[in-house]
Amino acid sequence: MRIEILTIGDELLLGFTIDTNGAHLARELASVGIEIVRRSSVGDGAEDIAAAVREALDRTGAVITTGGLGPTADDLTKPSIAALFGRAMVMDAEHLAWLEERWRTRFGGELPHSNRQQALMPEGARKLVNRHGSAPGVWLEDERGRWVAMLPGVPREMRGMLADELGPILRERAAREQAARGATGEPTVVRSRTLRTTAIAESAIADRLGDLARGMDGLSLAYLPGHEGVDLRLTARDRTAADADAALARGIDALRAHVAQWAYGEDATDMAQVILERCRADGLTLAVAESCTGGLLGARLTSVPGSSDVFLGGVISYANAVKVDALGVPAEMLREHGAVSEPVAARMARGARERLGARIGVAITGVAGPGGGTEEKPVGTVWTAVDVDGEVRTHRSVFIGDRAEIRFRASQFALELVRRTLARPAAD
Amino acid sequence: MRIEILTIGDELLLGFTIDTNGAHLARELASVGIEIVRRSSVGDGAEDIAAAVREALDRTGAVITTGGLGPTADDLTKPSIAALFGRAMVMDAEHLAWLEERWRTRFGGELPHSNRQQALMPEGARKLVNRHGSAPGVWLEDERGRWVAMLPGVPREMRGMLADELGPILRERAAREQAARGATGEPTVVRSRTLRTTAIAESAIADRLGDLARGMDGLSLAYLPGHEGVDLRLTARDRTAADADAALARGIDALRAHVAQWAYGEDATDMAQVILERCRADGLTLAVAESCTGGLLGARLTSVPGSSDVFLGGVISYANAVKVDALGVPAEMLREHGAVSEPVAARMARGARERLGARIGVAITGVAGPGGGTEEKPVGTVWTAVDVDGEVRTHRSVFIGDRAEIRFRASQFALELVRRTLARPAAD
Repeated sequence: MRIEILTIGDELLLGFTIDTNGAHLARELASVGIEIVRRSSVGDGAEDIAAAVREALDRTGAVITTGGLGPTADDLTKPSIAALFGRAMVMDAEHLAWLEERWRTRFGGELPHSNRQQALMPEGARKLVNRHGSAPGVWLEDERGRWVAMLPGVPREMRGMLADELGPILRERAAREQAARGATGEPTVVRSRTLRTTAIAESAIADRLGDLARGMDGLSLAYLPGHEGVDLRLTARDRTAADADAALARGIDALRAHVAQWAYGEDATDMAQVILERCRADGLTLAVAESCTGGLLGARLTSVPGSSDVFLGGVISYANAVKVDALGVPAEMLREHGAVSEPVAARMARGARERLGARIGVAITGVAGPGGGTEEKPVGTVWTAVDVDGEVRTHRSVFIGDRAEIRFRASQFALELVRRTLARPAAD
Repeated sequence: MRIEILTIGDELLLGFTIDTNGAHLARELASVGIEIVRRSSVGDGAEDIAAAVREALDRTGAVITTGGLGPTADDLTKPSIAALFGRAMVMDAEHLAWLEERWRTRFGGELPHSNRQQALMPEGARKLVNRHGSAPGVWLEDERGRWVAMLPGVPREMRGMLADELGPILRERAAREQAARGATGEPTVVRSRTLRTTAIAESAIADRLGDLARGMDGLSLAYLPGHEGVDLRLTARDRTAADADAALARGIDALRAHVAQWAYGEDATDMAQVILERCRADGLTLAVAESCTGGLLGARLTSVPGSSDVFLGGVISYANAVKVDALGVPAEMLREHGAVSEPVAARMARGARERLGARIGVAITGVAGPGGGTEEKPVGTVWTAVDVDGEVRTHRSVFIGDRAEIRFRASQFALELVRRTLARPAAD
């Protein structure tokens, strides 16, 4: 099945919003073998929406839109596409009643007039239930079987509706189309697996991979460098699901053999999750002491549900007085070495471990910029320390990037230092 | 000038790459008055590229592409578009010599055959110099004045080439087109200003705005709901810069008059920055105590450069023992009311203020989910407290969304509570 995606909203054309909906839809649909042949974005104008949908229907007969289903005057997706299909807009009494009831119970008042239009549906359309917000989606199909599915623009609502409602419709339809074509074998899919590495450069990986660097066994290999490290993505196309999975498993093993030391996980695995699982398995608890990252490391660890059995908490010691009072860093150490130094990082890690009663203390102190750099300690200089039961390991990095990148890279490296420490005790 | 943007690459259709090039181009071009009427993405296939460019030229006569200029077999942008224009591909001897020299000096070897194609250019094309990589860009124009500008897909190279090469060409062309139309005055621009609101629903804003909700004074109004709140963006089109600025200033004032209570800033202003500036102006210092947000509030405050004169630090009290030991929350209070409760939030705020020696303490304790909810305290329940010199204000919210959204909304609301407290002292 070949389809097109159309994301709607002036903000996409003005560049104020990065289009993450299109990418999410593409990923989810590709994984069930539905091929996206084009993605487009147009503004909120009714004519622009209708023209883009008409052209896409002419090419593929199958379009998913996101956006423009809200309660305000610039939400024109439903009426524009209804007009294109020659359908009138009719009030969905059931949805209107639901909206009125919801408004009464949640906000204690009458439904604002502007919200009533969310209950208007093109005649003959199928409603896609929205369990995550107030705007229903729409499935509209003509007598020739050409269809448009309209989803909301709010990412959480769009994702929920894709999973709950549209996904099952598309899978059923793809199976029916395949049967109609008389295809006997299993359907083919596009599948990917990603090996995540950190603290190694893209070119160093390519050198280590040698001949594998161009892909293997019919799989394509992409290098995706980011703040977390370099991801290596293998993609299998035009194979059955079983063939694709087997080839990807062999491919990931082959990659892993060359970069094992830097590979911390697969696919969307976050390093914080890897560390929490490792600590949980070893019965270890963790506390943090953060200076230049200001809470980012704690925020990453607690973004993982269920982190509370490992992560106890920490101290954000942004001011030097807090390093002294709350972590026990001696004032003379700060005077002598400065806040961004090896002994201060080590003492912060110990302070976090001791004061919070954890087995592991992790500390970060650095110059995140843009100001504050010196010749000796340029912007990007970060000292990281990990203290496990009193055994301390420290590391000095100089990260490149802007303030946000330096802070994120520092949090990633602090987690990597925990990983290395637990994999290979400091005493080795 | 109306143009379209086409980003090229299989990875965009598979959803593995978020298209930031399109957004960057849109922002930069809109700011000089060039209107983007559509953005599209197609895969690396020659026919798909040619079809998308042909259709876009039929609509606007002006297209910028990114991607597909590299040295590998899937880089087909130049030959596909050259064929569409009926041009042969010819070797650019100067660029080939540069490539060969670069390869010799940097890698100490001969230029690989596959890299030679980077020096092939469509006949009659203008080369756009790439100071940031090895693939030159291309400007191709037909006898009717219809044009395609091809830029590389690597964001850093694309941005550099836009600034160095394509930007000046487009500005000169926009001025010429305007002169040809007989327009005598200044060039027209597309400009936007955004008013940021928080803690008020999109539909409630629309109701308050009344007639203004559909825009005003020829300005279009867009509602952009997100985790931080609802942004109201006004856009002026087809006016001179001075006219646009004056209309936008009037428009923002009109909006502000209706939603003043919820308006915390403009454009990309982060709430953390607003709070820091407010505290700085009043000579106040700030400390945080975070439970369910785990450091996120501190991370947001310290993401602003120069925050250290206001923000002292905080305690991440994820475990209850840390709330007791590091913040002075009585153990019996935790037993009696639970960690997610008004008295605990208030005591955490006081503990942060007192222990860190700050004037203001801000505390967050809640149920971020997905587990841990009860009938009395469902997932999303968050108590926030602000203690200014011992005067405490608390608030209970029930945020919707997943774990990440609930945590972010909690951090945003905690900042909003500081803003309200400083705007209108608790004693009032």
